[in-house]
Amino acid sequence: MSSSGLQFPHRRYNPLRRQWVLISPHRTQRPWQGEVNPSSGFSDVHYDPTCYLCPGNTRAGGHVTPKYESVYIFDNDYAALLPDSPAPPADASPLLHAEAERGRCKVVCFHPDHSLTLPRMELADIRRVVDAWTAEYLALGQQPELNYVQIFENRGAMMGASNPHPHCQIWATEHIPDEPAAETEALKAYAAEKHSCLLCDYLQVEAKEQIRMVCENEDFAVVVPWWAVWPFETLVLSKRHLRSLADFSDREKTSLADILKQITTRYDNLFETSFPYTMGFHQSPVDGEEHSEWHFHAHYYPPLLRSATVRKFMVGFEMLGMPQRDITPESAAARLKDVPAIHFTQKSP
Amino acid sequence: MSSSGLQFPHRRYNPLRRQWVLISPHRTQRPWQGEVNPSSGFSDVHYDPTCYLCPGNTRAGGHVTPKYESVYIFDNDYAALLPDSPAPPADASPLLHAEAERGRCKVVCFHPDHSLTLPRMELADIRRVVDAWTAEYLALGQQPELNYVQIFENRGAMMGASNPHPHCQIWATEHIPDEPAAETEALKAYAAEKHSCLLCDYLQVEAKEQIRMVCENEDFAVVVPWWAVWPFETLVLSKRHLRSLADFSDREKTSLADILKQITTRYDNLFETSFPYTMGFHQSPVDGEEHSEWHFHAHYYPPLLRSATVRKFMVGFEMLGMPQRDITPESAAARLKDVPAIHFTQKSP
Ligand SMILES: O=P(O)(O)O[C@H]1O[C@H](CO)[C@@H](O)[C@H](O)[C@H]1O
Ligand SMILES: O=P(O)(O)O[C@H]1O[C@H](CO)[C@@H](O)[C@H](O)[C@H]1O
Repeated sequence: MSSSGLQFPHRRYNPLRRQWVLISPHRTQRPWQGEVNPSSGFSDVHYDPTCYLCPGNTRAGGHVTPKYESVYIFDNDYAALLPDSPAPPADASPLLHAEAERGRCKVVCFHPDHSLTLPRMELADIRRVVDAWTAEYLALGQQPELNYVQIFENRGAMMGASNPHPHCQIWATEHIPDEPAAETEALKAYAAEKHSCLLCDYLQVEAKEQIRMVCENEDFAVVVPWWAVWPFETLVLSKRHLRSLADFSDREKTSLADILKQITTRYDNLFETSFPYTMGFHQSPVDGEEHSEWHFHAHYYPPLLRSATVRKFMVGFEMLGMPQRDITPESAAARLKDVPAIHFTQKSP
Repeated sequence: MSSSGLQFPHRRYNPLRRQWVLISPHRTQRPWQGEVNPSSGFSDVHYDPTCYLCPGNTRAGGHVTPKYESVYIFDNDYAALLPDSPAPPADASPLLHAEAERGRCKVVCFHPDHSLTLPRMELADIRRVVDAWTAEYLALGQQPELNYVQIFENRGAMMGASNPHPHCQIWATEHIPDEPAAETEALKAYAAEKHSCLLCDYLQVEAKEQIRMVCENEDFAVVVPWWAVWPFETLVLSKRHLRSLADFSDREKTSLADILKQITTRYDNLFETSFPYTMGFHQSPVDGEEHSEWHFHAHYYPPLLRSATVRKFMVGFEMLGMPQRDITPESAAARLKDVPAIHFTQKSP
């Protein structure tokens, strides 16, 4: 594919979300007199007495985090969702419509060591996290009042992480939230029309084109999607048509651990910093339906644009109009592919 | 309306955007060890020799900003949209779909004084800005290749403003961007079903309920919408069914200037800071259709949550699932209504 015409402003279509993104290559040349964030370095502190996620410390409300040795999971002390929220009062008007939203919020500590992040963890330790996610997905999915399980990680102060200890969250909800609901619709419509899976087909196209591929292993591939919104956004796709973590083979679980280590290592290496991001898995709802249309994937949404300290702001036109990006997905993929596969802090033995 | 049942997690429906928001009251009680931004104070500098928007200074590319005396408008030197972008090459696959997006990007300097912000400007000066917006909306709307005119302001470093000089931007596009396109669909569907306007009806409901109303004048009202996503998000609604700035009477133009001064004054007073936000107008597309369904409004999306330095992060669950808020719209409205109507820096004469 010739990419010459793609060096001018154009818009691209996201068939998974059925939305558009405006691409304005070269716009990063404009001068920046705006916000500069501190770069996020690595901690040397293996145990922080003020961190409520470190083993043995007291959390809010007097709960004590036990002296855990690998993964530790607990109910969020400030849960945004409760299992037994009462129904709201009847709507005063059809334009003031509310519904109950019951749910559960959990915190998953990846490791007792406060200084670690996923790319610096051992593969075996990440595999333990994958096993914990799988067990939670299955257990929460069993609960009749829960219909979607959202696993996500906010890493870095820039991405609103309220604590730097390596952890993620799981919010399970009564309703399928808007994002996975919209993806479900798109996957279903594609399957009905083409008798095939949108993301299986998309992975084939990207494997052929290669220019947006970042890295892969036997079971997963990472691509900067054609429709990426964030400068270095990536999509992690399973090579098999897996609906959810429940469908993974033993090898695929280790492969998932490996691919997460690969992509987060590349992120950190890009600006030699602890790269901030929001990431999470989209997978089959747990509403009792078969959902053969679903294809497991992870979205990485990292904010950095120019350097370790200057981010992309999704504001103004982006909030009121549509998302806009300043570099092409192809150039972002090339840069992520170019960095070393080994973490920069581990270069010298 | 009893609001007792609304003190527990619930979700609310946004009929204008046809999306949901999760509301988790009291969640702000959780400890915050996350990012703290500098508070944005006011500048005393009326002319900054390094600011490329101050009168007489040289901008990027050697353009000189003239010694303007009220509003000054120019084409963005780093435009995200160009009037003559070539069409992208033919799609290599239906899953890699691109289209040309032609457009114009303009910068509107509100005032030569570097230190001013809208709430600190004189009403007559804001009225001049309203007149400039109206003229631009009309002129850009005349151009056959442009079909939507997005006027927006990013204020504050936290909201990605790359320059603190009081200004806004106008991006006019060939296609109607996703946000106003989705609102157009919702307004049309409501009009077809109810033979009435969604936002006219909504304003009536809020005028009766009162608890989400913040301030008003003869021609406009400001409400924290039932479905607000950002902690102190507001919606500015015209009382008459105006499709766009083109439909405004002379008095309505002055009233718009007044209501913008009112709401931004309340924002600044809330945390006694220069309150950051993204704001913009949604109005009738300029695609040649009548658009009798359209009802002019402004959205204010401010990030602050707890204080002048701690913001709400729309990350994790919000990016992968659905928006979530930590205080009720009713409590946000009460706080905005409670602050003085006069700007805190102008208290003493
Ligand atoms: O145009 P500016 O002020 O340099 O840039 C700002 O507004 C633009 C339009 O919303 C955004 O695309 C940028 O991310 C933001 O930093
Ligand atoms: O739960 P935390 O880490 O305290 O909070 C963070 O993640 C949540 C879930 O995405 C968001 O609602 C918060 O805005 C964010 O600061």
